Amino acid sequence: MDEFGLIERYFQGLSSGAPGTLLGIGDDCALLQPPPGEVLAVSTDSLVAGRHFPPDTSAADIGWKTLAVGLSDLAAMGATPRWFTLALTLEAVDPDWLDAFARGLGEIAQRFGIGLVGGDTTRGPLNLNATVIGSLPADAAVRRSGARVGDAICVSGTLGDAALALAQMQAGLAPLPELRRRLDRPEPRVELGLAMRSMAHAAIDLSDGLAGDLRHVLAASGVGATIEVQRLPASVALLRGATQPLQRMDYQLRGGDDYELCLCLPGDRLQALQAVCGLPLTRIGTVTAEPGLHWVDAAGATLSIPEHAYRHFE
Amino acid sequence: MDEFGLIERYFQGLSSGAPGTLLGIGDDCALLQPPPGEVLAVSTDSLVAGRHFPPDTSAADIGWKTLAVGLSDLAAMGATPRWFTLALTLEAVDPDWLDAFARGLGEIAQRFGIGLVGGDTTRGPLNLNATVIGSLPADAAVRRSGARVGDAICVSGTLGDAALALAQMQAGLAPLPELRRRLDRPEPRVELGLAMRSMAHAAIDLSDGLAGDLRHVLAASGVGATIEVQRLPASVALLRGATQPLQRMDYQLRGGDDYELCLCLPGDRLQALQAVCGLPLTRIGTVTAEPGLHWVDAAGATLSIPEHAYRHFE
Repeated sequence: MDEFGLIERYFQGLSSGAPGTLLGIGDDCALLQPPPGEVLAVSTDSLVAGRHFPPDTSAADIGWKTLAVGLSDLAAMGATPRWFTLALTLEAVDPDWLDAFARGLGEIAQRFGIGLVGGDTTRGPLNLNATVIGSLPADAAVRRSGARVGDAICVSGTLGDAALALAQMQAGLAPLPELRRRLDRPEPRVELGLAMRSMAHAAIDLSDGLAGDLRHVLAASGVGATIEVQRLPASVALLRGATQPLQRMDYQLRGGDDYELCLCLPGDRLQALQAVCGLPLTRIGTVTAEPGLHWVDAAGATLSIPEHAYRHFE
Repeated sequence: MDEFGLIERYFQGLSSGAPGTLLGIGDDCALLQPPPGEVLAVSTDSLVAGRHFPPDTSAADIGWKTLAVGLSDLAAMGATPRWFTLALTLEAVDPDWLDAFARGLGEIAQRFGIGLVGGDTTRGPLNLNATVIGSLPADAAVRRSGARVGDAICVSGTLGDAALALAQMQAGLAPLPELRRRLDRPEPRVELGLAMRSMAHAAIDLSDGLAGDLRHVLAASGVGATIEVQRLPASVALLRGATQPLQRMDYQLRGGDDYELCLCLPGDRLQALQAVCGLPLTRIGTVTAEPGLHWVDAAGATLSIPEHAYRHFE
């Protein structure tokens, strides 16, 4: 089984159907026709075992997550997913593993209507790279740099579930299925990304933990923020699994792998946005002129939160 | 040093200057404006030590090659290089290594006017992925599937140098610098790719050895070919280093890493194309209606060449 056979056998089914695909897998390059008048949004991510997923993660879940992280980046810009390339580095050719991987990848690709247009396979330590290409009208893109003083800061869904699942596994415990699912099958907020385009001033996806990711928005926008930590949205499973408030807050602020969106937008648009996207949105704070990130408790007293966020090289 | 700092420090200089880059590195996605009326050509490749380059390869040469392989794919379609993303998986943060890697990468990026627009860094076994995006008028793309009966088959440059260098190294010998350079600093034939657009019916870049790569063109085009093996172009260094004719032919046909282009075009266009691209082009055979790949010697007698080409999973 050579690399050409591999790609054809497992992934050919994922390579058709995306509009504008003039030529898919099987030549030196794919040929793609972007929608007229739109610009491209592009992002690349590599996943490594033990760093981006626990070593015992199923092949189907790895397939899902390989594409989920890039789709989450597209969501954060407000882009429509169009195409992706896949570069697989595998220890060996294991048909069962590849079959399951392609199934998980196919599920998420089909769900978001994104077509596989380029592949590369090589032998080596497991490494999974997806480069995603989306498109959107140039003036619709939501950047990190557009936050304005007075904007409401909100997040979608709940925070900290994936971090709790990981912590429990590292402690030798089996997480609840709904927690483990947040870690293994993150839901890129593509629909929210499209809905927010006309309302949000700035956005980022939460892959490395709110505390670190929000700082990128503030730095790019030249503003600060006050965050009311008691407003951080938590799932029932998190509330039950992390009963110690400081520990829970740590999962929510620094855990990573949430793949929710954090948005800055006028507070009076929040309700309309929530109605459109059908996803819980929680206001957690406000953009301020004073630089820095200020955490306050329910009484408005300042809390000290270490700067440290999840970092890939620590 | 976190991943954001890494990207900024070593690679920020490579991220500006490419036309149509509305937003480069530093947000969730890059925003790219393709030239009006053109379509995209996209390819992805991952490089692994010991498989795509010898373990002792310098960081600067690895940087060069990381981008060279994708540029060679763009050349084979006739596309103009525009942008690329880079996903680095590194064992550790070694400033000297990163500095040299970025320098080699920067040399080739600058030479071909391609801009870095997305980056990802993670810790793990060394793995280097580049996804390249080029553009071209839709009807200008040269595919593998367009070869016509009677077309001349030609290759650029010379074949087998990189394979000889690798074989010598594997035998504990030090290859001549000009041979080692072919392995470490392949020259993507981008200018030839642009020049051939109006002349060639089919093209492929020679990364896995002529014997295997040409078969892809023939299969996609539904044709066969006769190749005169004594016409395979050889460098002086190859003629001196591989004096045994059968061994030399093996390097030329199955060695891989040539990164020359193999073209199918009307024979009477060959001279004009060579004049435009300023690169030696050698006619090595003819496209035939009879399927299969037929190798003949100088006297026209059929030679038996094993089907085996370089395969990443063998």
